[in-house]
Amino acid sequence: MPKPPQLSSHLNNLKPSVFATLAAQFKLLPALPIPLHLGDTYRLPTPEAQWPAVLQKLPGNPYQYASPLGMEELRAAVVAKLAKRGLTGLTTNHVLPCSGGTGALSLLAHTWFKAGDEVLILAPFWPIIRGIVDSVGAVPVEVPFYERLRAGESIPAILDGYVTERTAALYVCSPNNPCGTVLSPDETLQLATWTQQRDLWVIADEAYHDFVYGGNRHSFLAALPGMAERTATVLTASKSYALAGTRVGYLIGDPAWLDPARLMSTHITYQLPIVCQIAALAALEHGESWLDETRELYRRAAERVAQRLQAKFAPAQGGAYVFVDLRGPLQGRRCVDYVSELLREGVCVAPGEAFGKDFEGWARVCYTAVPPEQLEVGIDRLNRSLERLAAGRPL
Amino acid sequence: MPKPPQLSSHLNNLKPSVFATLAAQFKLLPALPIPLHLGDTYRLPTPEAQWPAVLQKLPGNPYQYASPLGMEELRAAVVAKLAKRGLTGLTTNHVLPCSGGTGALSLLAHTWFKAGDEVLILAPFWPIIRGIVDSVGAVPVEVPFYERLRAGESIPAILDGYVTERTAALYVCSPNNPCGTVLSPDETLQLATWTQQRDLWVIADEAYHDFVYGGNRHSFLAALPGMAERTATVLTASKSYALAGTRVGYLIGDPAWLDPARLMSTHITYQLPIVCQIAALAALEHGESWLDETRELYRRAAERVAQRLQAKFAPAQGGAYVFVDLRGPLQGRRCVDYVSELLREGVCVAPGEAFGKDFEGWARVCYTAVPPEQLEVGIDRLNRSLERLAAGRPL
Repeated sequence: MPKPPQLSSHLNNLKPSVFATLAAQFKLLPALPIPLHLGDTYRLPTPEAQWPAVLQKLPGNPYQYASPLGMEELRAAVVAKLAKRGLTGLTTNHVLPCSGGTGALSLLAHTWFKAGDEVLILAPFWPIIRGIVDSVGAVPVEVPFYERLRAGESIPAILDGYVTERTAALYVCSPNNPCGTVLSPDETLQLATWTQQRDLWVIADEAYHDFVYGGNRHSFLAALPGMAERTATVLTASKSYALAGTRVGYLIGDPAWLDPARLMSTHITYQLPIVCQIAALAALEHGESWLDETRELYRRAAERVAQRLQAKFAPAQGGAYVFVDLRGPLQGRRCVDYVSELLREGVCVAPGEAFGKDFEGWARVCYTAVPPEQLEVGIDRLNRSLERLAAGRPL
Repeated sequence: MPKPPQLSSHLNNLKPSVFATLAAQFKLLPALPIPLHLGDTYRLPTPEAQWPAVLQKLPGNPYQYASPLGMEELRAAVVAKLAKRGLTGLTTNHVLPCSGGTGALSLLAHTWFKAGDEVLILAPFWPIIRGIVDSVGAVPVEVPFYERLRAGESIPAILDGYVTERTAALYVCSPNNPCGTVLSPDETLQLATWTQQRDLWVIADEAYHDFVYGGNRHSFLAALPGMAERTATVLTASKSYALAGTRVGYLIGDPAWLDPARLMSTHITYQLPIVCQIAALAALEHGESWLDETRELYRRAAERVAQRLQAKFAPAQGGAYVFVDLRGPLQGRRCVDYVSELLREGVCVAPGEAFGKDFEGWARVCYTAVPPEQLEVGIDRLNRSLERLAAGRPL
């Protein structure tokens, strides 16, 4: 045997995702359940960003190497869009295309953190962020946040207790995956002020910034006074333009750290496929009316969930999800065990423990993964199952 | 200012690539030089792997997420090809598609190494490997190898002096980038035996295994007795099938460590674009005669270089490069300074220091980056410049 079955210690805390576990269960089912567990969309991208149109725009030889910096035009289009959305003062040197939001956040962790650095993660959170922090040997510190915020606690009161000498950064996702909360401009400002007082880096996962509903408004953390130099903004064509399969996201921020991140990126992926960058560029250039239409469709889906789902949750203010508190009906059972029953009823949700250790009795429901008519059926099946649970008659 | 302008210490030793520096110089030139510095190809991929054909094979919605494991058919095609080439006993669980060879090697480093682990890198070497080792906090140890091997020294005699208690692995690239050496079956066996005696992991960068010329023969390190469990084989569609811009490479080896690598990969890039995986699959399925034709073209190009380039170098046995010893003509100057002169003569080569600290007076010449007629002009220009140098008349 070779000396090392010792692998990197950074692997110690990485766990297979709950989605991988679910996918294994799916194989045993007679039919696929309605997939309300996934964070994806049924929408096709705007036609200009679909492959047949993209092919018309390829450079002379699109099979050769290209710049590890990413296409200049693509970065310029990101800058232009963000300027229109209120995040101004950026140049193309502030933007690095990465392998989706995951690639951007992973690269950031590799650039910013040393082993032992603590990262505050506002919970519930997007599942992969915890593993990303672990994967560089830093320490994820889960901070139950959104429930306490909704209960009226002040941001310093929620966060102060979690800061230590080793705290390096705070991760916040707004519009939130999984709970659909959009931080108000005032809350965003309070959070910004607190991170400045504590002198922390900020990871602003604003992947869902294009999807905010009703009277809610998203404001970019990096746009607030004093925040540009300490904030990394992460966006992605996966969410904004229904291009998850093309793997184009953006890491955005001060070249003082983004230049080193570029160098790190060259040693991790080298570059993104040109064909994918062109798809993302087309979406940025031609996707505005598609985005309006999609936002309206998602808003209506969120509304249907708010009206019809017979469970305890805060209606979505933005994003693609609601986070359902099933602790009552589950009576101490973990959601992950309940999901096996749900699968046999033909619907799937994401078990809450993926979104934080305090959420074993919760579930994430995505309302953008399937078209409206399927969503209705999915809600029917969920309601039926929850009624049975309430009546003490599990499947 | 935020507390941390301290970034990850893993960035400390990363340097911008010499190619990035050259690209900046190119912008100041009246015309682009003949690019013999790049590691790319003028060949278009086999038609089945070009985008118009790939589009015909896309799944229902090719814009959604797909499995982080990579396509099962793609992994099966890699297994099938390798079995034909003498690397048997693999299953699809032994293969993980990554973002090119760079992505595969980076992922491997993130999986295998702890900070402080030493990695022997046989020099001269592919430039990015040094930074990849640095980027995880491990220590690259350059071992001048190929010259000493050609001079008749035994493999243990070359390597023994570099091993310490912290040595974890050995990186070898054959056919070699940059020097074109193909380790003979006997040398490969000696190297394998030595790594077993020393109980090391082996990184077998066999990116150019499809391009071996004349009477030379490549043998896979992982195929030798006792090597499967300690060897990571890295291959790439970039080199084998002229698909650098699609970013598909393969990390291949024992699931005992490849399973953890998959988990790491999910947290670094999540998945590869489906469209790129389909291109790589088409190349594997339909690329055999294209490969024969391309190998013959590269062989002829290597032969022309061997016949015509008026400099000191070992003729290529495989791969895409020769590594030219310019220490005589440069008389103590660094090649990187000479390249600025060469650029004005309309040709570019890669300065040797990128390939190891002992090679400042060397240059890598790629004979696959431009078509045959341009290669001849490039050689003419190089020869003219070298004649001037020899005559003491720099440009």
